[in-house]
Amino acid sequence: MNKYDADLGKRPANHVPLSPLTFLRRTAEVYPERPAIRYAGRTQSWAATYERCVRLADALRRRGIREGDTVAVLCPNTPPAVEVAFGVPMAGAVLNMINTRLNAPAIAFMLDHGEARTFLVDRGLMRLGREALALANVTPLLVELDDSTIEPTPPSGALAYEALLAEGDPNGAWSLPADEWNAIALNYTSGTTGDPKGVVYHHRGAYLNAVGNALEWALPRHPVYLWTLPLFHCNGWCFPWTIAAVAGTNVCLRQVDAAEILRLIRDAGVTHMCGAPIVLNTVTTEAERRGERLPSTVELMTAGAAPPAAVLERSGRVGFRVTHTYGLTEVYGPNTVCAWHADWDLLPAAEQAARKARQGVAYVVQEELSVRHPETLEPVPADGATLGEVMMRGNIVMKGYLKNASATEAAFAGGLFHTGDLAVMHPDGYIEIRDRSKDIIISGGENISSIEVEGALYRHPAVSAAAVVARPDDRWGETPCAFVELRDGASVSEADLLAFCRQNLAHFKAPRTVVFGELPKTSTGKIQKFLLRERARQLG
Amino acid sequence: MNKYDADLGKRPANHVPLSPLTFLRRTAEVYPERPAIRYAGRTQSWAATYERCVRLADALRRRGIREGDTVAVLCPNTPPAVEVAFGVPMAGAVLNMINTRLNAPAIAFMLDHGEARTFLVDRGLMRLGREALALANVTPLLVELDDSTIEPTPPSGALAYEALLAEGDPNGAWSLPADEWNAIALNYTSGTTGDPKGVVYHHRGAYLNAVGNALEWALPRHPVYLWTLPLFHCNGWCFPWTIAAVAGTNVCLRQVDAAEILRLIRDAGVTHMCGAPIVLNTVTTEAERRGERLPSTVELMTAGAAPPAAVLERSGRVGFRVTHTYGLTEVYGPNTVCAWHADWDLLPAAEQAARKARQGVAYVVQEELSVRHPETLEPVPADGATLGEVMMRGNIVMKGYLKNASATEAAFAGGLFHTGDLAVMHPDGYIEIRDRSKDIIISGGENISSIEVEGALYRHPAVSAAAVVARPDDRWGETPCAFVELRDGASVSEADLLAFCRQNLAHFKAPRTVVFGELPKTSTGKIQKFLLRERARQLG
Repeated sequence: MNKYDADLGKRPANHVPLSPLTFLRRTAEVYPERPAIRYAGRTQSWAATYERCVRLADALRRRGIREGDTVAVLCPNTPPAVEVAFGVPMAGAVLNMINTRLNAPAIAFMLDHGEARTFLVDRGLMRLGREALALANVTPLLVELDDSTIEPTPPSGALAYEALLAEGDPNGAWSLPADEWNAIALNYTSGTTGDPKGVVYHHRGAYLNAVGNALEWALPRHPVYLWTLPLFHCNGWCFPWTIAAVAGTNVCLRQVDAAEILRLIRDAGVTHMCGAPIVLNTVTTEAERRGERLPSTVELMTAGAAPPAAVLERSGRVGFRVTHTYGLTEVYGPNTVCAWHADWDLLPAAEQAARKARQGVAYVVQEELSVRHPETLEPVPADGATLGEVMMRGNIVMKGYLKNASATEAAFAGGLFHTGDLAVMHPDGYIEIRDRSKDIIISGGENISSIEVEGALYRHPAVSAAAVVARPDDRWGETPCAFVELRDGASVSEADLLAFCRQNLAHFKAPRTVVFGELPKTSTGKIQKFLLRERARQLG
Repeated sequence: MNKYDADLGKRPANHVPLSPLTFLRRTAEVYPERPAIRYAGRTQSWAATYERCVRLADALRRRGIREGDTVAVLCPNTPPAVEVAFGVPMAGAVLNMINTRLNAPAIAFMLDHGEARTFLVDRGLMRLGREALALANVTPLLVELDDSTIEPTPPSGALAYEALLAEGDPNGAWSLPADEWNAIALNYTSGTTGDPKGVVYHHRGAYLNAVGNALEWALPRHPVYLWTLPLFHCNGWCFPWTIAAVAGTNVCLRQVDAAEILRLIRDAGVTHMCGAPIVLNTVTTEAERRGERLPSTVELMTAGAAPPAAVLERSGRVGFRVTHTYGLTEVYGPNTVCAWHADWDLLPAAEQAARKARQGVAYVVQEELSVRHPETLEPVPADGATLGEVMMRGNIVMKGYLKNASATEAAFAGGLFHTGDLAVMHPDGYIEIRDRSKDIIISGGENISSIEVEGALYRHPAVSAAAVVARPDDRWGETPCAFVELRDGASVSEADLLAFCRQNLAHFKAPRTVVFGELPKTSTGKIQKFLLRERARQLG
């Protein structure tokens, strides 16, 4: 032992688990009266938010929730969706935010796989929640989350969220996790290659990515953050924790609506928001229609597919400044950023858009971003041309997949997280994604598995072969486009086939286009998807 | 084991030691051409800075430096003082920045206690460095740091810094520490209660406080940071690492000079600086004399004693915005911040100054700041009146004192770091320091131990009793004021006694005032310092 270790170990005075729960307590203490959450004309202070989260944690403990238990939540971006980001882990439990656009069987799978012990469901989603519960094997405590903006429904019989909070002591004791490696959240992937996988986040990573968001965006003190990004996507890219760290305000939003977004930007003084490019496009189009400019610049962080040059230009004129990031569920949301260089401002608009379209460099809180040969793990040359797989390593990478050791091992083979996305590395060290190795279609910010859609099509008696690829779409970014070969003598209309898909899939996953005809195949019978992608592109 | 731990342990892909060295590599990769360091008309890019740090690390390794070895540095705020903050820990070594205002015996003590294996000394401080080496038992490799702004001295025979760098491979391998708990720096306290104590920092704390500075100051991207704060104070309050994290520019400054500071604010576009209140006062006075305003607002972070209301007002008119923080060597520098509330801007100037004079709340990256009874550890009531000791707990608290287990135990008694400073807790949770329990005098940002100065006085044959207290001073904040009782029949002049002190102490520690006469004592013979403090105050 060298002299710098002798008698110099960790102690309670100098070592505390990193956890974003620290941010809530600190901001509630320092800025108790500042607005934490605004929604439906009401404002809730940080002190009140902290008290409600303490109550929630205490009530969950009284109901028997313990460390490592799962609390599932089905809720749009209303205030409870922010509160659970703190109250659930303050109880030592693991938060599982579920995509509200899924269908009941998919939700039931997640409730069972995560072994949910409590299930908090928004009032407007109670029917879906109950359908899922009926299909599930687990029998979690059902709690109904209120929302004053929607029509009261008949008494559901479920425990009301406010009643649950009333069971909790506002001065109840809670503690940081015993270990920063403890799980804080469970987020299911969209299941693009089979059953959804349960991605486990730890407190350390949540803390660091929350800080990373603040650093990459150079967040000012007290930003006003509009919830255009679903809180069920990677815990809202860790932004509930970021906004607490910088004592900002969460402006909640039940659904993405251009007019309402413009109103909130003006009336609530929104300064920052995140979302898929479609959000940017929709709001820009509405502002243009009205001939309005934003009262001051609004920072918009987008991820995955970059907005086209034309949208960037138009939105810039309206008053948005776009930061392009990229990430996956497995890495806490955004994990790379197209870090801007001041001298790029002088480039022609098209070249600026080309720069901005790149997924960029690792977050400052991440350790490594690389593009490598998928098997040898050799880095590809930084020539902007050689394709390789995007890989990452560092502190904002998941613990692994819940109850799926083989998938975890595969994802972490060779000491790197394998994203499955294919990219090139440019000479300046910025990556640009060129293709996805997992056949994902990104439509309106949601990942759709082409394999899952093909599975639905194959279940129709008239279908002999099917392949689904992405079709470029001005509004949604991409939509699923199905190429279908029918059995000899069988027939089905496009409308009937689409209706069939909608019965068997979440609506947003159903194809928008069906093209009938023989599928191009290799000599060994494998469908040549790259040809179909080209055809889909030509459909315009 | 619960399901969230099974097969979900730490791996190279998802767990990397936190270290501020990450920030240098990342910024050098993303912004290679941006200016990292400006000094004496020259600019060094982040790519060049990274290369020089890699060279330094590699050269140190070739010279036999290994993990846990100490590299001592005696250097003003010139570029090498920034480079060593990275290059030394990249070699696995521990950086010991030594206060350049100390005298040779004090420096020799530190070289010996820290077991320095390499000693990097600024060209202008070689004489002091050699004196210290002559007194020390250790025989570290001596390296001379160049500075183009000072007169060349005759060849010293020491290895030149540039020659050392030339020994290193610019592509040399370096690695993060194996454990984030490994030591990164050694900083000696001013020894206010005896021999200086060696405070050990770890990589985790340095990383977190670097991030904390960015969060508390809401740093923009690419700040231009002027080095008015000595880099030997708590590693420049961790700002070399902060500035790397946000891809800013370090503007170096050999000595604090108001005209030069104003020139750099204008010519180098300085946006941020730190320092003792005297820096603020000096620069403000010079700007007023010239009738100048700063070209745009400059953020100034100060610590310890708050600037008086008049200075705050005057400096505000000139263009400074002041953030008041507080900390100690043991907690990586600033650790609390007087977090400002927007509505305080509406208060009268005197009330604003009174708010700003408070030391405030814990950094967001620290866990706990409290004011407690020194023995029972009971928190004092938050009444703004009851005095208690300031205590802290969290991740930006030192590992402990090097080779001093008893001092470490005492500092961490009861699971809290005991600052030794006395404060009240206001009802809003902000602390305000009222007194120091360790008899420290803070003069021009330097801590002076009254006990050490008294020790020097007692060594004079004519002195029978001496007590040293702080005398308020407009320029220096405080200066040491000596009250001296002479032996019967002995005599000495004030001038002779001061000269005697200067021979035996670093110059800045010598008293500025001597008051002869009988000292007030308790019935048991204890000198009543509180009465002397009052008398010193009345000296005006």
